Amino acid sequence: MVLDAMGGDHGPAATVPGALAARREHGVPVVLVGRSDDVRRELRRNGGSGELEVVHADEAVPMTERGAGAARPGSGLLAGCELARRRGGPFVSAGSTGAVVACAVRAFGRREGVLRPALAVALPTPSGSTVLVDAGGTSDPTPEMLAQFAQLGAAYARTVLGVADPSIGLLSIGAEPAKGNRLARAAAGLLPSAPVRFHGNVEGHDVLAGTVDVVVTDGFTGNVVLKNIEGCVRTVLGMVAAAGIAPSGRLDEVARLYSPDTHGGAALLGLTGTVVVAHGSSGAAAVARACVVASELAAVGEPFPPGGGARDDRTPFGPASEGRAPDGRAPTGPVA
Amino acid sequence: MVLDAMGGDHGPAATVPGALAARREHGVPVVLVGRSDDVRRELRRNGGSGELEVVHADEAVPMTERGAGAARPGSGLLAGCELARRRGGPFVSAGSTGAVVACAVRAFGRREGVLRPALAVALPTPSGSTVLVDAGGTSDPTPEMLAQFAQLGAAYARTVLGVADPSIGLLSIGAEPAKGNRLARAAAGLLPSAPVRFHGNVEGHDVLAGTVDVVVTDGFTGNVVLKNIEGCVRTVLGMVAAAGIAPSGRLDEVARLYSPDTHGGAALLGLTGTVVVAHGSSGAAAVARACVVASELAAVGEPFPPGGGARDDRTPFGPASEGRAPDGRAPTGPVA
Repeated sequence: MVLDAMGGDHGPAATVPGALAARREHGVPVVLVGRSDDVRRELRRNGGSGELEVVHADEAVPMTERGAGAARPGSGLLAGCELARRRGGPFVSAGSTGAVVACAVRAFGRREGVLRPALAVALPTPSGSTVLVDAGGTSDPTPEMLAQFAQLGAAYARTVLGVADPSIGLLSIGAEPAKGNRLARAAAGLLPSAPVRFHGNVEGHDVLAGTVDVVVTDGFTGNVVLKNIEGCVRTVLGMVAAAGIAPSGRLDEVARLYSPDTHGGAALLGLTGTVVVAHGSSGAAAVARACVVASELAAVGEPFPPGGGARDDRTPFGPASEGRAPDGRAPTGPVA
Repeated sequence: MVLDAMGGDHGPAATVPGALAARREHGVPVVLVGRSDDVRRELRRNGGSGELEVVHADEAVPMTERGAGAARPGSGLLAGCELARRRGGPFVSAGSTGAVVACAVRAFGRREGVLRPALAVALPTPSGSTVLVDAGGTSDPTPEMLAQFAQLGAAYARTVLGVADPSIGLLSIGAEPAKGNRLARAAAGLLPSAPVRFHGNVEGHDVLAGTVDVVVTDGFTGNVVLKNIEGCVRTVLGMVAAAGIAPSGRLDEVARLYSPDTHGGAALLGLTGTVVVAHGSSGAAAVARACVVASELAAVGEPFPPGGGARDDRTPFGPASEGRAPDGRAPTGPVA
């Protein structure tokens, strides 16, 4: 598998020891793509000179990069994606989500019928896991795209979490289909006829309650929710510790469940290859975990074959048109 | 103050004992509006016959009501709002948010220059409180409306929380103004010239971190975030208890901070009167708290005079036009 060595807030200082840990502790062979001087220096510092393959790519993509611009010729991120495609292995980056999505789409291409990719994250609930999709792949999707995200999320829950017939909830602000913003209301009209087991609308409090197996939303709301959970876990456990109710060491057991070190990042669904986007703030442990997750995802083979999500005689990916946003405009691409 | 006796998931079974508690424990005189037979029966059941004024209104608005439709002649919710306006006091309801907003706008009217009302909730952070606005007032606002919500939220933080010069963050999915969905990107372009102390974009993890005094977002995202926090607090503390790390009784101290029983609901800002929307699931304690909060809010007088939010020579409520959504369409009204 190929790792973007320059991505993330910490760059090679986190990615290189993370890659070494993935190799040493989990047997996952990692190819590092980035500025080879920086990468080799970091390998030496970690006693790993020559231990991993390094492929030089000159132009690092800054974390502030907004998306499509990152997929330019010469971009190190694009070079990494293309290398992964040529080698037939997964790609991992802790870089700017929008930039990773743009490069991954360009290098791997979308699977047939897929309108836009979506990021999926499995979040721990009291009874198991709930998949949140889209956690930041497409910030202004159309209702048709949300219906596809439901199918991509269902395929992820089946193949990765082993849920035989996953239930799908549409994230909104009331149980009735008429509640929500324009996008949610339009999607609530499409989902009952999509080839998934549609539970209906769910609300913010359902995300971690285990109400459904897959929570579907747009990439803006999903990304806000994902980060809101991270912050909420930190604040609430911090308050418990500060009040002397429990020692913070013990509380870390729960905090860890929601940490990037554990979940290993988000899977970008809907492409012809396996791509994992790690958290921008990932340290070495989170990078290692993302590499392991990517390698496991790739090992399930092609988890989302074009016809794999179909139920009965309904087409797997709905209308061929990508639809229009409820606002009548074309959807915008990956979040930045 | 006037309380919608029929609102909320539990109706008079929660509102009547809540109103009695507000009167008995906090000296807040409550007028109950609703089906007088039901209300008087519940008063008798709680040993409070004749203790509170009851105004009959026949037609209860169901919790599934979608908004504007609730503001019809004959609606008990509208009758309650109009009674509060005539008496010059606050109005409280645990009814459907969209229905309450629609009736309140119709009965009280918006303050001069205000394009749409917004719901504000003060959330506990490790260092104090952060105001989340809009928590569900307007589901598809324009960027201009978000700039006004910032001013309404700042005025709330000043008058209710006593923060002299509140900082404002725009909820998005990256720190850079170019990140976000269309709405957030457009709002990020307006807020630097709005008459508020604009911090810049914040992300989901900042909401409970105390990064800024006021977090501004659209009513859809805000409502999802508010309920997501409620669910997250419940799940995380439940996991701590289930793991035997701390007794659930002690953890309730923290859970209570985020419970409607404590925060008492959301204030609807931008109208000529004081309106508090309590949580639909409110029990008697939460209803009582909402009545007390409404009475306190009303006691600060008119916290948001048309010129009250101005800094320097900038106009308090920006452009007279309500703007267009980034999608080019007119904004939609209150969330349903």
